[in-house]
Amino acid sequence: MEKIQSNSSKYSTIFLLCSLILNLIFIIDYYKHVGSKSSDDGLSWSRRAAIEAESVAAISCSGHGRAYLDGIAAFLDGDEKQRLPVCECNSCFSGPDCSLFLHGCLADADGGDPLFLEPFWMNNAESSAIVVAGWHRMSYSYEDHSFISMQLQNHIRKLHLITGNAVTENRFIVFGAGSTQLLNAAVHALSPSRNSSSSSPSPARVVAATPFYPLYEAQTDYFESVEFEFEGDAYLWRNSSSMNMVEFVTAPNNPDGQLNKPILKGPFVKTIYDHAYFWPHFTPIPAPTDEDLMIFSISKLTGHAGSRFGWALIKDEVVYQRMNDYMQINTMGVSRDTQLRALKLMKVVMEDGGRKIFEFGYNIMKNRWENLTNIISLSNRFSLQEISPDYCTFFKKSRAPSPAYAWVKCEREEDEDCYEVLKAGKIIGREGRLFGVEARFVRLSLLKSQDDFDLLLHRLNQLIISEQLSDV
Amino acid sequence: MEKIQSNSSKYSTIFLLCSLILNLIFIIDYYKHVGSKSSDDGLSWSRRAAIEAESVAAISCSGHGRAYLDGIAAFLDGDEKQRLPVCECNSCFSGPDCSLFLHGCLADADGGDPLFLEPFWMNNAESSAIVVAGWHRMSYSYEDHSFISMQLQNHIRKLHLITGNAVTENRFIVFGAGSTQLLNAAVHALSPSRNSSSSSPSPARVVAATPFYPLYEAQTDYFESVEFEFEGDAYLWRNSSSMNMVEFVTAPNNPDGQLNKPILKGPFVKTIYDHAYFWPHFTPIPAPTDEDLMIFSISKLTGHAGSRFGWALIKDEVVYQRMNDYMQINTMGVSRDTQLRALKLMKVVMEDGGRKIFEFGYNIMKNRWENLTNIISLSNRFSLQEISPDYCTFFKKSRAPSPAYAWVKCEREEDEDCYEVLKAGKIIGREGRLFGVEARFVRLSLLKSQDDFDLLLHRLNQLIISEQLSDV
Repeated sequence: MEKIQSNSSKYSTIFLLCSLILNLIFIIDYYKHVGSKSSDDGLSWSRRAAIEAESVAAISCSGHGRAYLDGIAAFLDGDEKQRLPVCECNSCFSGPDCSLFLHGCLADADGGDPLFLEPFWMNNAESSAIVVAGWHRMSYSYEDHSFISMQLQNHIRKLHLITGNAVTENRFIVFGAGSTQLLNAAVHALSPSRNSSSSSPSPARVVAATPFYPLYEAQTDYFESVEFEFEGDAYLWRNSSSMNMVEFVTAPNNPDGQLNKPILKGPFVKTIYDHAYFWPHFTPIPAPTDEDLMIFSISKLTGHAGSRFGWALIKDEVVYQRMNDYMQINTMGVSRDTQLRALKLMKVVMEDGGRKIFEFGYNIMKNRWENLTNIISLSNRFSLQEISPDYCTFFKKSRAPSPAYAWVKCEREEDEDCYEVLKAGKIIGREGRLFGVEARFVRLSLLKSQDDFDLLLHRLNQLIISEQLSDV
Repeated sequence: MEKIQSNSSKYSTIFLLCSLILNLIFIIDYYKHVGSKSSDDGLSWSRRAAIEAESVAAISCSGHGRAYLDGIAAFLDGDEKQRLPVCECNSCFSGPDCSLFLHGCLADADGGDPLFLEPFWMNNAESSAIVVAGWHRMSYSYEDHSFISMQLQNHIRKLHLITGNAVTENRFIVFGAGSTQLLNAAVHALSPSRNSSSSSPSPARVVAATPFYPLYEAQTDYFESVEFEFEGDAYLWRNSSSMNMVEFVTAPNNPDGQLNKPILKGPFVKTIYDHAYFWPHFTPIPAPTDEDLMIFSISKLTGHAGSRFGWALIKDEVVYQRMNDYMQINTMGVSRDTQLRALKLMKVVMEDGGRKIFEFGYNIMKNRWENLTNIISLSNRFSLQEISPDYCTFFKKSRAPSPAYAWVKCEREEDEDCYEVLKAGKIIGREGRLFGVEARFVRLSLLKSQDDFDLLLHRLNQLIISEQLSDV
């Protein structure tokens, strides 16, 4: 009896001991949690927005679309309380989760939406997210009374230095809503001012070598003032050395990817260098560009076309002042929200000296070009621009072509309207006539989403197979 | 002996029981935590940005400034690793935490920075924060191929409905970078197009009743095209009924807060209603405005001048198309980042039918006006515009004046240059001449930060005391 009691007491002591040890573990763990709560989990006002953003990001759209925080919202099935944005599908995909492919859908290779870089930002979600507080930069101006974030300006200079694509020393910087706004600001600033001269000067003639980016013509015509007018192809004005001329030089060129040089020279010629595509994704960087007026944008650098952010590097102070005036009078500068976001994106781009994003972008664009040229090489009906490989000072090696656009020519004599030829093959390009050349040319966009590019290849394949069959 | 054993066993059982209960509590608590972890604390990629934003928001600037996420950063004292943005101080304050008042500093009442609403957003930090993912809206266009968020458009219509300040039925909406961009887009759209007429029509004459917002003149002059030119005061053109005229009608008027009506009428007159200040903070809302072309912006509604966001309500489809074209060719629409933020701000404004923000704003502006009129009433040297109280359909009562600006007149014959008179008293206003009237008038801004307003009152007090002393 005593033995039993002694045994039971022993067990009960062991049991008590175990229980006490467990107590101790829990207590230590509890205090560890309380401690960490105030450092790791100590979010207060930003938590709700963070949860909302992550819920939206977690919505599955089958890899053929995505949901956005500001998308049209719908009630979840069986849940009358929680409304979440619906999937926005890539073109040719449909259904609540974008899983339905629309058969017979046209391959849209028209616009320049740089969505090939979207996966890069999804892969770098943590470093590229920003939280915007309700009271962030409500004022018209930064602390230095300007419309331009000094931090962002400094980052842009650093970015050019590490990329080696532009000289920023002794340059002023002006921000704009994409290169779009800056292009016209530059035309304004370089045209003879009616106030600077005693007599009324004739307006500046604005030109660009064909094929040229259609916006140059559309914009200069639309905003036609007493100070400037669009005059088309630069080649036609080579011998007009006594007139006020403004030439757009696009390098790499949109549509054909060539590193254009100015056509016009002389004391009355001003040049606007449009370098929107002068990044290692699209072109070898032979040397930093070092011109009087150079325009860049994030659209083709990071892929954020929708943010509308670009900048101009300007040597001459008077030109800088005039472009600055334009920005003030047109829009009072660029949205401070956009400048905050651009700063964050720049920081991610520069994290490892730019290698990560430029290699990512280059590999995609190079592969796409290879795939495209392989298909087109099977055809006698279509040809592409020639791009020679060149040494790139950024990658420190010779690199294969990786242009943003294919500049397609219809070679058959009867295929005068190449846009219609491709459209009959269910491919939408951009008509050559918009670029100031004959309708025998069409631009095909290569920088859209993978879905768009895959469908483009597929349709081209079909078109060329049917060509070969009809040749037999 | 047995009793002792039995007692000890009893205690040990009680002890064991307590320990077990404690364990049970811990276990339940643990599972509760695990459960909540996946809902409350389950943040992943957004956490870093949230922590960063909260650290910046926690930087103390003594109530006379604030630190921003994209401010110039400095190393913290004694910490070589952590860089945080430095305080940006309100004018006349200085020092690392903005606690130093700069004696002798001029009261800056020049600009229209609507910082009186900043405390509202600090008080509503949780509901107004947004997290922007790195891949948010990279495309040029929304799902419907437009540059305009349908969600935001819907919210704007709802906002006008609950505020009762504008009719939005049968109206198209165009977004712009603040009202700034929309004003010129409207002038463009309402001027006779060179293409629509067989002969080249004379340019539209653009006018506004004095005193008028200086940007009308600055912008129309700057962008002078073959289609329009600025012609000054509307009163001078009352009898020119056969000419193409465009009149800006500003209600409430900047600078004097009056609910202006059009001066010109007739078949060749087009009117642009600038309603930037037509919100219950600043004016009674007698009835919803129901005009052909009305322009609003968030700058004076929510105080987010830096975001550059405005919209136009347009009745005529052709005018709408032309303004849309302008937006496309000028900037390819408004930054999608800004549209996301504007949507969030609208949601907060509408949370309780708008009462919270409008009451907050109205109370501040009304108190400021009372303080100002009390001081000015002591002076014979200065006078203010008269604003009569009126019934407000939003507040459902007659309301006291609460204008955004004081329109000051120097009454003494010798005080012809009122701007210089005030400047001698250490007050910076905006010169009357910029508003198209004589230099005897000056505009003083009442909607800046509390620090700015307090200093303005202080300087005015000093000026009027010295006037009274010199009168003695």
